[in-house]
Amino acid sequence: MIAGISGRVLKKSGNVLLVETKSGVVFEIVCDVQTSEEVKEGGECFLHTFLSVSQDGITLYGFSNEMKKELFLSLTKVSRLGPKTALKIISNEDAETLVAMIASQDVEGLSKLPGISKKTAERIVMELKDEFESAGIKDMRIYHESLEALVSLGYPEKQAREAVKQVYREGMKTSELIKEALKFLSHR
Amino acid sequence: MIAGISGRVLKKSGNVLLVETKSGVVFEIVCDVQTSEEVKEGGECFLHTFLSVSQDGITLYGFSNEMKKELFLSLTKVSRLGPKTALKIISNEDAETLVAMIASQDVEGLSKLPGISKKTAERIVMELKDEFESAGIKDMRIYHESLEALVSLGYPEKQAREAVKQVYREGMKTSELIKEALKFLSHR
Amino acid sequence: MIAGISGRVLKKSGNVLLVETKSGVVFEIVCDVQTSEEVKEGGECFLHTFLSVSQDGITLYGFSNEMKKELFLSLTKVSRLGPKTALKIISNEDAETLVAMIASQDVEGLSKLPGISKKTAERIVMELKDEFESAGIKDMRIYHESLEALVSLGYPEKQAREAVKQVYREGMKTSELIKEALKFLSHR
Amino acid sequence: MIAGISGRVLKKSGNVLLVETKSGVVFEIVCDVQTSEEVKEGGECFLHTFLSVSQDGITLYGFSNEMKKELFLSLTKVSRLGPKTALKIISNEDAETLVAMIASQDVEGLSKLPGISKKTAERIVMELKDEFESAGIKDMRIYHESLEALVSLGYPEKQAREAVKQVYREGMKTSELIKEALKFLSHR
Repeated sequence: MIAGISGRVLKKSGNVLLVETKSGVVFEIVCDVQTSEEVKEGGECFLHTFLSVSQDGITLYGFSNEMKKELFLSLTKVSRLGPKTALKIISNEDAETLVAMIASQDVEGLSKLPGISKKTAERIVMELKDEFESAGIKDMRIYHESLEALVSLGYPEKQAREAVKQVYREGMKTSELIKEALKFLSHR
Repeated sequence: MIAGISGRVLKKSGNVLLVETKSGVVFEIVCDVQTSEEVKEGGECFLHTFLSVSQDGITLYGFSNEMKKELFLSLTKVSRLGPKTALKIISNEDAETLVAMIASQDVEGLSKLPGISKKTAERIVMELKDEFESAGIKDMRIYHESLEALVSLGYPEKQAREAVKQVYREGMKTSELIKEALKFLSHR
Repeated sequence: MIAGISGRVLKKSGNVLLVETKSGVVFEIVCDVQTSEEVKEGGECFLHTFLSVSQDGITLYGFSNEMKKELFLSLTKVSRLGPKTALKIISNEDAETLVAMIASQDVEGLSKLPGISKKTAERIVMELKDEFESAGIKDMRIYHESLEALVSLGYPEKQAREAVKQVYREGMKTSELIKEALKFLSHR
Repeated sequence: MIAGISGRVLKKSGNVLLVETKSGVVFEIVCDVQTSEEVKEGGECFLHTFLSVSQDGITLYGFSNEMKKELFLSLTKVSRLGPKTALKIISNEDAETLVAMIASQDVEGLSKLPGISKKTAERIVMELKDEFESAGIKDMRIYHESLEALVSLGYPEKQAREAVKQVYREGMKTSELIKEALKFLSHR
């Protein structure tokens, strides 16, 4: 529901930021290490956020770019992989490299990263490889957004992924990919 | 609780909009296809919203006009019809036509729309026809608002619907319809 | 948590108001009938609110003055009396009269009001009479606030009520009443 | 999630404050007695807050400085010690003295404070003494923030505490302490 926060960084303690918005409400945002290093106390920032509501309470996670947030959301869908571990993985390697390692099923490489056991690396590759290497889609974000849009329109994920794989051509924008996929699905 | 959001469209991915409000908080809003086509990235927008809190998390649904929101709320009351299917139905036909099809119990027509099986069409007609064709009320919104007001004042839905049906006369405004219905109910 | 909303009344449908705040977020607020009659569409308003979180979802109730809100909170503490019935009771009689009827245990009078059966009237009187007539405290709001403050500081309600009853003198302000009661409690 | 609120104090009833933010939303904030005495009705204030979501509803607790908030969070982690008792303890003694009493395991002294039985004092000392006297860390806040940052990066609390204890040197800032601890942990 809360997809982003822009405001002034009141305080930085490790990777937890306090960001004051114009209304006077200060949000506590848990980030990956690079994101927190990129912002300065007293400076303005805009973070792509994810609002997590669970038994442990309400936590707002924040990222300096959308790709890291998308990767965080994908990692937290992996079984027995919670937000803290996802954050640790993203803190120890840049997003592009991680996506490439997962797409190329590089279990070895992944398990060398702090916070990823061999078992966790295998689960990540097994559960996410389709998503990342599917149709050799260069831009994982466009793939992700189109899939999410089709699913939120009620199409089962499997059909949506099939359609995106069939109609994708290099250079397509998200809106074009969705339109082509909808046409493909309506003729099924 | 959150019945509307006005702000700047930061980003459009399919039918998911990121809208930045004046306080700096960016809301993720899931819309029907026409609504998302009506707004432009970078432009200002006002959406009629519904805040859904469920096991799957907190989602904000948004519509460019109130009638679509009212229809969405009615559809989601139909058994085994969730927000995604309701959104898909509203994305594939305009609200007035859908209301007329339901009021005239046009199961055939409804089941031709993408996302509506014969069974679903029958359930929609069976559970919503009273609401839509009741007393031949032209303006479904006035009917809906008056009913909602009476129920929120503690009157059982059945009594409230009976009262509205008895006192409704063409051209009435919501406030007049509620006053007449309250008089009717207090003399029962 | 949200104790008040100030903003512009976008829309009035019966006793449900849509109020737009400066941040661009529009809140749906369910009010008693007088409160909704006191505000004008397009005009500014300030409402004393209560945020109710339950199985049915998140609802914001609003009142034009604090005494009505306090009475609403007291009524909803009565067993088997929910927010809708409380709202209906408050919509049909002014707060001062209701408080006097409860304090003087006027079951007869209460049960004549729309929405209050004999049984409900008896429960209201039985469960609230202490609170209202206790120590003949003229200003129920001061009594309520002092009690609430002491309880939120960890004192059991029974001890807190006893202390307030002992130390109350006509004309006292809330802060004075709390100070005297704290002294009384620390010497026990 | 909501770590701070700045706005105008609309009203003070005992230790419950109504603070109006720039967006027009008024927050109800439950404070310790000193905090509520430090603010003036009609004046501006900034409070360090903690958003508690539980069966009893959603409550926002507020403190005039961060150390009191940190102490409140530590106390509420003690078994069978809820927010009301924690608030009462903090209302009856200043934070530095309380920390020193806990660090020096002064059960006697603690149990003389209103709201703390002998049993509660023993539980507080037993469950918090490590945290407070650990490594003779002068500044409990730096210790707390570093620990929290490491835990939120996925390190088990026991390892994180061990690392902070090993690398802490007087005068270190939070960011330096975290960096050293991360180095220590990556060489384990």
